[in-house]
Amino acid sequence: MSVIVKDFERPPASQISKLAGAGVSTIHECLGSQNANLMRHDIKPLSEGMSLVGPAVTVDCSPGDNLTIHIAVAFAKPGDVLVVNGHGIPAGMWGSQMAFQAVHRGIKGIIVDGAVRDSKDLRRMKFPTFAKMISSQGTVKKSVGSVNVAIQCGGVVVKPGDVVVGDDDGVVVVPRHDLQGLPALVRKREKKEAENRKLYAKGVTSMELNHYDDYLKDKKVRVVRDARDL
Amino acid sequence: MSVIVKDFERPPASQISKLAGAGVSTIHECLGSQNANLMRHDIKPLSEGMSLVGPAVTVDCSPGDNLTIHIAVAFAKPGDVLVVNGHGIPAGMWGSQMAFQAVHRGIKGIIVDGAVRDSKDLRRMKFPTFAKMISSQGTVKKSVGSVNVAIQCGGVVVKPGDVVVGDDDGVVVVPRHDLQGLPALVRKREKKEAENRKLYAKGVTSMELNHYDDYLKDKKVRVVRDARDL
Amino acid sequence: MSVIVKDFERPPASQISKLAGAGVSTIHECLGSQNANLMRHDIKPLSEGMSLVGPAVTVDCSPGDNLTIHIAVAFAKPGDVLVVNGHGIPAGMWGSQMAFQAVHRGIKGIIVDGAVRDSKDLRRMKFPTFAKMISSQGTVKKSVGSVNVAIQCGGVVVKPGDVVVGDDDGVVVVPRHDLQGLPALVRKREKKEAENRKLYAKGVTSMELNHYDDYLKDKKVRVVRDARDL
Amino acid sequence: MSVIVKDFERPPASQISKLAGAGVSTIHECLGSQNANLMRHDIKPLSEGMSLVGPAVTVDCSPGDNLTIHIAVAFAKPGDVLVVNGHGIPAGMWGSQMAFQAVHRGIKGIIVDGAVRDSKDLRRMKFPTFAKMISSQGTVKKSVGSVNVAIQCGGVVVKPGDVVVGDDDGVVVVPRHDLQGLPALVRKREKKEAENRKLYAKGVTSMELNHYDDYLKDKKVRVVRDARDL
Amino acid sequence: MSVIVKDFERPPASQISKLAGAGVSTIHECLGSQNANLMRHDIKPLSEGMSLVGPAVTVDCSPGDNLTIHIAVAFAKPGDVLVVNGHGIPAGMWGSQMAFQAVHRGIKGIIVDGAVRDSKDLRRMKFPTFAKMISSQGTVKKSVGSVNVAIQCGGVVVKPGDVVVGDDDGVVVVPRHDLQGLPALVRKREKKEAENRKLYAKGVTSMELNHYDDYLKDKKVRVVRDARDL
Amino acid sequence: MSVIVKDFERPPASQISKLAGAGVSTIHECLGSQNANLMRHDIKPLSEGMSLVGPAVTVDCSPGDNLTIHIAVAFAKPGDVLVVNGHGIPAGMWGSQMAFQAVHRGIKGIIVDGAVRDSKDLRRMKFPTFAKMISSQGTVKKSVGSVNVAIQCGGVVVKPGDVVVGDDDGVVVVPRHDLQGLPALVRKREKKEAENRKLYAKGVTSMELNHYDDYLKDKKVRVVRDARDL
Repeated sequence: MSVIVKDFERPPASQISKLAGAGVSTIHECLGSQNANLMRHDIKPLSEGMSLVGPAVTVDCSPGDNLTIHIAVAFAKPGDVLVVNGHGIPAGMWGSQMAFQAVHRGIKGIIVDGAVRDSKDLRRMKFPTFAKMISSQGTVKKSVGSVNVAIQCGGVVVKPGDVVVGDDDGVVVVPRHDLQGLPALVRKREKKEAENRKLYAKGVTSMELNHYDDYLKDKKVRVVRDARDL
Repeated sequence: MSVIVKDFERPPASQISKLAGAGVSTIHECLGSQNANLMRHDIKPLSEGMSLVGPAVTVDCSPGDNLTIHIAVAFAKPGDVLVVNGHGIPAGMWGSQMAFQAVHRGIKGIIVDGAVRDSKDLRRMKFPTFAKMISSQGTVKKSVGSVNVAIQCGGVVVKPGDVVVGDDDGVVVVPRHDLQGLPALVRKREKKEAENRKLYAKGVTSMELNHYDDYLKDKKVRVVRDARDL
Repeated sequence: MSVIVKDFERPPASQISKLAGAGVSTIHECLGSQNANLMRHDIKPLSEGMSLVGPAVTVDCSPGDNLTIHIAVAFAKPGDVLVVNGHGIPAGMWGSQMAFQAVHRGIKGIIVDGAVRDSKDLRRMKFPTFAKMISSQGTVKKSVGSVNVAIQCGGVVVKPGDVVVGDDDGVVVVPRHDLQGLPALVRKREKKEAENRKLYAKGVTSMELNHYDDYLKDKKVRVVRDARDL
Repeated sequence: MSVIVKDFERPPASQISKLAGAGVSTIHECLGSQNANLMRHDIKPLSEGMSLVGPAVTVDCSPGDNLTIHIAVAFAKPGDVLVVNGHGIPAGMWGSQMAFQAVHRGIKGIIVDGAVRDSKDLRRMKFPTFAKMISSQGTVKKSVGSVNVAIQCGGVVVKPGDVVVGDDDGVVVVPRHDLQGLPALVRKREKKEAENRKLYAKGVTSMELNHYDDYLKDKKVRVVRDARDL
Repeated sequence: MSVIVKDFERPPASQISKLAGAGVSTIHECLGSQNANLMRHDIKPLSEGMSLVGPAVTVDCSPGDNLTIHIAVAFAKPGDVLVVNGHGIPAGMWGSQMAFQAVHRGIKGIIVDGAVRDSKDLRRMKFPTFAKMISSQGTVKKSVGSVNVAIQCGGVVVKPGDVVVGDDDGVVVVPRHDLQGLPALVRKREKKEAENRKLYAKGVTSMELNHYDDYLKDKKVRVVRDARDL
Repeated sequence: MSVIVKDFERPPASQISKLAGAGVSTIHECLGSQNANLMRHDIKPLSEGMSLVGPAVTVDCSPGDNLTIHIAVAFAKPGDVLVVNGHGIPAGMWGSQMAFQAVHRGIKGIIVDGAVRDSKDLRRMKFPTFAKMISSQGTVKKSVGSVNVAIQCGGVVVKPGDVVVGDDDGVVVVPRHDLQGLPALVRKREKKEAENRKLYAKGVTSMELNHYDDYLKDKKVRVVRDARDL
């Protein structure tokens, strides 16, 4: 059965804004590298440099039918990101007309497990668009799917109000209950990386820094000084 | 964060048993052809003729790590089916040793969005196994994922206690709330199909039966009697 | 625009029947290994041992819509093979109900660049079915495509009345104008292969038989008697 | 058998030029979203912003052999676009030397269902190149295929003189008989979209504009005001 | 440059025969689950139950050209297995004529990273054949590649004299220097698995056996008794 | 068994520098179009225009584990290129921290048969990075693989000290023994191409230049002056 949920409680904007500068790979690490949170690598930005962050409005379409996105746009609020299960097939679920409408409604971007079209216009508008592919293939408007229920997108479960973050590395989903503690973990990791870079600049290797040479003492590892000694 | 839910309320066995004879394609149609319910076509049985039906015990593993399946097996009950998100990569998450254990615990089958191995033994045991691929690649046992939460498998969301049905056509997921009305719809459809077959045997075409020739009267359709008239 | 061509001139049955025993790979070779004639390798039989030969009734469907196949079945004649462009996506364009109807109308088989379903029944019926995949995904009946025009299927152009031949190796398309000379070429090749097998059984190598050792005299080829001499 | 057709009647240049500004997705819609006209989404421009429009000179090569393209270039006329079936494999069928020659002969671009190479030079020359992939793999010049017959490219049938249009969204094929009426349909659709954008800018939703909320009154759709009411 | 090495030292037949009963997954584990030893999962047997073991005669072909296999067959010795880099494309590198010849020369099987054809005959002959796909596509005999040098096949490096083992799970490559110790490791593992099965039959879980419940005490793991307590 | 080879003899820098300006496709041709030398087309630069040339330091990782790259970085010398077998799965084996370290150690670039992450930073740093995909997925540091042995990467065998050359067309591997003669062949080919371009600019076709019209006299080729004569 189709279920259309018009509204849900968004996480506080203050929590979302704290994630704005953080990279997807950093957030993924800080969430414990849980793959339940990371979309498949083939969900990627339409242009290099596109990024987005915001609470997910989830949309489950029938294959080749984008009616449900039209419905979701009408219920979305400023700051939201549309997260669409387009069932991974090359039907162009989103284009410049819908993006124009979305911009006027304050929607911050869209993620489609499937295709988008009017790619030239979407790039010119710089509307943050993450998708599996570009395809002109037309869609119909016949079957209502679901809005704001738990959906699959890019190989992960997304719930309404989960915060999605996208950049050149792809898309990570931050579950609502992990949101509060995350910014501190991100800052800690970024600080650690900055410190390591200073050491690397002085010629320290990551092998020394992390004592990875201990692994070379394992009996199952044969260490040879030169290829001629093999 | 990892979440391990040890137990949940199974749907009544009487409801599950009523689905035993029904085909996956028939059930999918009776659920309204919702693609939110049908796993990707690449999740297929290890041998022709394998089938399963039962409540899902859901398992979300780290990529290349099958520790969480061992945990889920210990908490599963007779009649359950394991539904595993193996993140679609060729790591062999399940083999004959685990299947042997599962049989002894009354588990009815397994579905893996990923790989299984020991395929010869699994086929000989006739343990209902649905997977994306066969791969010998070994796994580690290092990271705990989640058990009995909403997961992604084969491109759909599966919740603990949803009933999964698999046969040669693939796997369909019956949400708990759709379970009660489903057997009646299945019987109705099967009856209709039997009646149609009688008509087809008499030479009636499905075009006549369904008045599809009305479509040929559309102005956008050019009907030509013979290729030489083109 | 959609074009429905109800009838066309079939090649003589006597010419078609002469191809019945010949293998797809042999026919492909006798056609000069023209890749314009050989469908992509992923169009394969539903069961090992399925085979078909007959004039093509061509069908171009809208993606996810099998209405046009219903129309084509009504116009097909005994001995015909349905050749369907299903646009390569996992929508189940053909199932047991349609196959039942087709059998009663004398249709000899179907080739789908896309998916079929009710695979268990199709296998039990032994209805020759060649497809890219099995998928339960439902289809709609909304848009009329074309029947008996030049279509794409499996990466090749198929015209109504071309003879399609399928076996465990895949599907080859014999253009009408190549039909007459083909059986003689097939017999010649089969005879040659039988002679060669007699020589192989006596210990002759194909290298000797075809003087491939001449290639080893090329200056760009370095021949080494033993790996220790490298 | 190979068939080389040296010449054919091009559609009037005036008709072709009227399509120059129109987008691929718009043309696809105006052709009735027939998928028989739209190439697979993996046939894409070598650089963002590349576009082409012109009558197709069709080329069917043997796999890994680009001899037939050399032949076609010699027979092509200024304004033509080469449309090549390279059988989808990673052999580099086209490179900068051939593009240099093509530019000097007034050829407007090339579409390859297969690979091209010398991508850096092709991009620098801004020669409109649409292909499935980039691959250095060398080709031979041994087997003549066909020129200017019906071919398969990108999953569709292309005939000599069909007009191909390519942009960032991919490639659409306009059959000769659809050419005359098309520009008017395109202008009508563009006008309609401009009007809609004005309404969207005023805050109207596409749901209101198209009365999609009628779908929400369907008994099979459950509408919930807030996620907490589920 | 092409290099043809006619001969090399095979490992002792006594060592090879000791691997005959062992499964590919077991051997892979006993080699330390090194992925450098395991071919990609898409290299699979032509029929269920096919298996092979023997020293590799390595063959590197030009794409679409099987001349080098003819050369290798002439130099192979009874007991050898042909391991062919066919560059992963759908050209039918091996068929029934060559298999007939191979059987008469005592060759034990073939592994092709690419396609084979005459699949019906190969299955009837029960000639152990492992390949990526079946394709009728013809090959040429124009370019000499290399025989008995280090090659790539199925994503791993294979050297002449490495022992290849194939079964329903795929293909594993045993480097010559790992051969001697391997049978003892295999027997040890098989014994351990037999013991574990006895425990499983008594109702012991693998979680208990391996103390995996220790993982549940980790602070990052939330354990919940029942889904209603979430 | 894991093997770590700390050092090997690099080819003379003077030989490597002579390849700096040459394109990958040109080098591939000059090596005789041997496909044993050309990586799969899906190993591509992270940004258009990235290029690299240098002796390979080879790295074979466990799937999802990048520990061995850390080890290899410590043993690499200025001018080297890291060539990593990441087993083709979407685990992010390399990122900005490691690239920062590599730059400081004079490493000239990296090639990964697998994924990289921190793509935005890698692009900003302009560190020459060739990979199959971008993926944030985290890796572990548990298992030592091998360094500076023969590995598989992108479907070819790479040995330490082979020279790898990458540009927009992909990556070619120059075996050590082919290095000396190569620059002369490259210059010869480039000179020939420059001469041909002069002829093309005068209106000569490549068909005339290479006498390809001879092929049109073949009896199996039907030449037709105009499509209306078919």
